[in-house]
Amino acid sequence: MRLAELSERSGVPTATIKYYLRERLLPPGERITATTSEYGEEHLRRLRLVRSLIQVGRMPVATAREVLEAAEDESLSQNTRMGAAVWALPHGPEPDEDDPHATRAREQVDTVLRRMDWSYGQELGDASPAYRMLVAAIASLDRLGYPHDTEHLLVHARLAGELAVADLDLVETYDTPPERIEAVVALTVLYEPVLLSLRRLAQTEESGRRFAE
Amino acid sequence: MRLAELSERSGVPTATIKYYLRERLLPPGERITATTSEYGEEHLRRLRLVRSLIQVGRMPVATAREVLEAAEDESLSQNTRMGAAVWALPHGPEPDEDDPHATRAREQVDTVLRRMDWSYGQELGDASPAYRMLVAAIASLDRLGYPHDTEHLLVHARLAGELAVADLDLVETYDTPPERIEAVVALTVLYEPVLLSLRRLAQTEESGRRFAE
Repeated sequence: MRLAELSERSGVPTATIKYYLRERLLPPGERITATTSEYGEEHLRRLRLVRSLIQVGRMPVATAREVLEAAEDESLSQNTRMGAAVWALPHGPEPDEDDPHATRAREQVDTVLRRMDWSYGQELGDASPAYRMLVAAIASLDRLGYPHDTEHLLVHARLAGELAVADLDLVETYDTPPERIEAVVALTVLYEPVLLSLRRLAQTEESGRRFAE
Repeated sequence: MRLAELSERSGVPTATIKYYLRERLLPPGERITATTSEYGEEHLRRLRLVRSLIQVGRMPVATAREVLEAAEDESLSQNTRMGAAVWALPHGPEPDEDDPHATRAREQVDTVLRRMDWSYGQELGDASPAYRMLVAAIASLDRLGYPHDTEHLLVHARLAGELAVADLDLVETYDTPPERIEAVVALTVLYEPVLLSLRRLAQTEESGRRFAE
């Protein structure tokens, strides 16, 4: 398809597509003449992913490019590419090395990973951005004096485990490894606001049930 | 306690506490002399909440003030104050009125609320910021062509429901209504990164199990 059709089918204005091409967020089309190129279904798919990262995930272009490069690194296995692409997503504040709250939080995260029998998490430890994000989040709870006992964290971890099964089932509805890698990145980003808004709606129900006069 | 002790016990520098007092994020202490005031446990508690909103939740001062004012409005019942304070938290992008994706998403959200038997959500509908956040999130999935069938959303909703029970159990460990209102706001904000990081860790485990070569 030509640029105009790519724009129409994706809903992304041609000027924006040209910008993404210049920024290497989108691979070039197949050059037909000096001024026209031909684009395929993989461009359409990639464009959706770029929109997910930039518009919904509010990522800077440089971060989005890193995610896409990780997703595309053909020297890596499918699973490693999935992991690398998700690792390149923004993860929020990092724990502070010298903070005693972070040291305690780290021990607690290790206990949670062990109790959940999450072997990748245990092996990767601090190398994983999600691990560091969790340490920073628990360190904040500890610093501010809010409860974060291991049993409560395990409730969250178990539910996150069930969610991951449902999420990966969705990813497996895609047929090819490149599609699956793109789906895992897009769905990770796009389902975060779904999950957080459902949690707030559920809290309203539960607190209504308990505290309504 | 004096300002110096409030600073020491909270870990918040005195200059920052003075700033919060000026910005009315913290109620004034009881004036003792022209230059010194006395602060109580409620100041310490409030200071923790302000830190949760501003440092961890990265909220602008004006938003934090709105949340605190809602939490303090004594003309409202406990449950209404909890709800109002959580509503004042930032909720991300709003759905676009004229967007056909948002119209479809709204119908789907109504179905989810009905199937979950969430009566507050059904009654409040669009008035609830969490409802609008969910509509916007599903509209994005729809616009970008990613899957969002009702059954998958119901998996997220059921897990969010279980999480809310555990979260409210934690809130009920606080004894008085003002403490509970502050706890519900702080824990809503502080547990969001816990949940999102655990979801990413769980995805790594699950995709490792399915796709590792």
